[in-house]
Amino acid sequence: MRRAVALAARGLGSTSPNPVVGCVVLDADGQLAGAGFHQRAGGPHAEVHALREAGERARGGTAYVTLEPCNHTGRTGPCAQALVAAGIARVVYAVADPNPQATGGAGTLRAAGVQVEQGLLADEAQAGNAAWLTSVRLGRPYVRWKYAATLDGRIAAADSTSRWITSAEARADVHRLRAEADAVIVGSGTMRADDPHLAVRGTEDTDGVNQPLRVVVDTNAAAVKPGARVLDDAAPTLIAVAEDADAAHLAEAGADVVRLPRAATGLDIHALLAALHTRGVRSVLLEGGPTLAGAFVAAGVVDTVTGYLAPVLLGAGPAALADAGITTITEALRLDVTETVRVGPDLRITAVPATPVSKEH
Amino acid sequence: MRRAVALAARGLGSTSPNPVVGCVVLDADGQLAGAGFHQRAGGPHAEVHALREAGERARGGTAYVTLEPCNHTGRTGPCAQALVAAGIARVVYAVADPNPQATGGAGTLRAAGVQVEQGLLADEAQAGNAAWLTSVRLGRPYVRWKYAATLDGRIAAADSTSRWITSAEARADVHRLRAEADAVIVGSGTMRADDPHLAVRGTEDTDGVNQPLRVVVDTNAAAVKPGARVLDDAAPTLIAVAEDADAAHLAEAGADVVRLPRAATGLDIHALLAALHTRGVRSVLLEGGPTLAGAFVAAGVVDTVTGYLAPVLLGAGPAALADAGITTITEALRLDVTETVRVGPDLRITAVPATPVSKEH
Repeated sequence: MRRAVALAARGLGSTSPNPVVGCVVLDADGQLAGAGFHQRAGGPHAEVHALREAGERARGGTAYVTLEPCNHTGRTGPCAQALVAAGIARVVYAVADPNPQATGGAGTLRAAGVQVEQGLLADEAQAGNAAWLTSVRLGRPYVRWKYAATLDGRIAAADSTSRWITSAEARADVHRLRAEADAVIVGSGTMRADDPHLAVRGTEDTDGVNQPLRVVVDTNAAAVKPGARVLDDAAPTLIAVAEDADAAHLAEAGADVVRLPRAATGLDIHALLAALHTRGVRSVLLEGGPTLAGAFVAAGVVDTVTGYLAPVLLGAGPAALADAGITTITEALRLDVTETVRVGPDLRITAVPATPVSKEH
Repeated sequence: MRRAVALAARGLGSTSPNPVVGCVVLDADGQLAGAGFHQRAGGPHAEVHALREAGERARGGTAYVTLEPCNHTGRTGPCAQALVAAGIARVVYAVADPNPQATGGAGTLRAAGVQVEQGLLADEAQAGNAAWLTSVRLGRPYVRWKYAATLDGRIAAADSTSRWITSAEARADVHRLRAEADAVIVGSGTMRADDPHLAVRGTEDTDGVNQPLRVVVDTNAAAVKPGARVLDDAAPTLIAVAEDADAAHLAEAGADVVRLPRAATGLDIHALLAALHTRGVRSVLLEGGPTLAGAFVAAGVVDTVTGYLAPVLLGAGPAALADAGITTITEALRLDVTETVRVGPDLRITAVPATPVSKEH
């Protein structure tokens, strides 16, 4: 199963709106017969890859799968049936499928006389599929907020200069996070200050680079100018504007524009996430700036925080997070640190809300 | 030697203005004969403790010492002579003594026919004695700046509430840092906001608690009020004021007041450190607030940064470090992270300037 979890992770970033899944098939003698992972949406599921590799050796064997085998026919046939047809005697899966369309695979297998067990390495498999599981459970994309700051919490110096606070290693790591996400989001302040490109570069990818959708929250349609780097053809781009904004220049520039309701400040974050979910986006990397991050925190939709801390002191300059509607210490958003690692000279700190984010919106 | 380094650390906080030193004596057969550490200034040096324990077994034996044995008669006799008199055949020391008054011990030993080696575990011994070595080299106390902040760099919420951002474990850890320092320093802002006590509590200490000197930088003599908690008798207290400040009320309250020149803002930090050095202070724990910390960073006298980061987001509130004279990214103070550890739910990050702080002032 550990191998299946590792295989599953190789699909991160290319399977959306599907989960990542890994599968290992052992023959009746317990020898490795086949292995596979779900490589991209519309392509064969992990079980199918593994069964193909195993061939006749699958008969009487055991399949280890990171997620309950699906029970429905979408773009591909139901995996539960495929396992039965291949003569698999026993299926061990880590995490149950919460997707109402696909669930029931375990029942189908049992009805066909297959021995079914659940729960092996469930925590690891769940962590590997956190984005997809969250999106199914909450009906919105999983949100990772990423920031890069100094030890004293600044994202730029007093004169707005910020190149480079974090190291080349940390910046490469961010490209890895981008490649794993379905969409990358920035706000109008970041757009104006940095004219970011937001495409993935510098990652090894045997299957072609996975370029996430680039999303700019440009409430008043005033930050994205013709010629902006996000408007090139390196990746698809979506500009989110207010319903009443004058976005004619964006349409003229050929940009894909979505109109959303305004909130007290900026756009309605829940509406933004719903619009992205409709487009098949299951995970987003929120890259700032502080104002947009504050709006996401205030909306209660940040599922993971990834902070890159550079061992640098500035003593002045903007903070990573602006107004999140928190005015006193008892309202603070409390997190649990799940990982701390060195990335070059910097630290990467990963944390998740200590109390689960709201289940519904 | 590893044991000697560990022994030396037991003296941290009580030996000032002396270094911490540990010593292990093996007999002629290489068996442990004696061990000791310098426990407090004015008391016997580590070598004397170890030689006493070894007695006649020291003859022909080897002494492992973390610091070059001293060569001068202060409140106690020279250790080099004591080692010779005890018949020690070989001395291995980790770090040379940079103190001009005490250096030369190795020469004295060699002249008496003792075999002398230097450098074993020098890095570890140096790290254990960093504060004292820095104070000798720079002629000022070693400065550790400590702060406690949220992941987004805030030390309090928008309404100034801050209890408790970090955990009980982190606060206990700060008391350990205080107990290891000769003085604890805060500025007038912290004085006004928190009325801190600054004494050490909650640490185990077999030898009685080491209470550092409490220092308040109260430039205009307007922040420390009669009845302030730092004016109790839990520990000695020094109030640093400007030469032209009206500090009559502090003298009336029985406070120890030192008058120092003003700088562009606040007091002259170099003059403050010199005044503390004169009083035998070899290490200080700078506990804030942001303005005073900024002045120390601007003066180039922060030797170590210890940040306690709580996995909390606020989105508003003051930052840990205020104006340090840095306006653009190329002027940023760059550090190297030397340690990252979990302290309860929080992280403690220790970092030192990447380029050594100025050798002279």
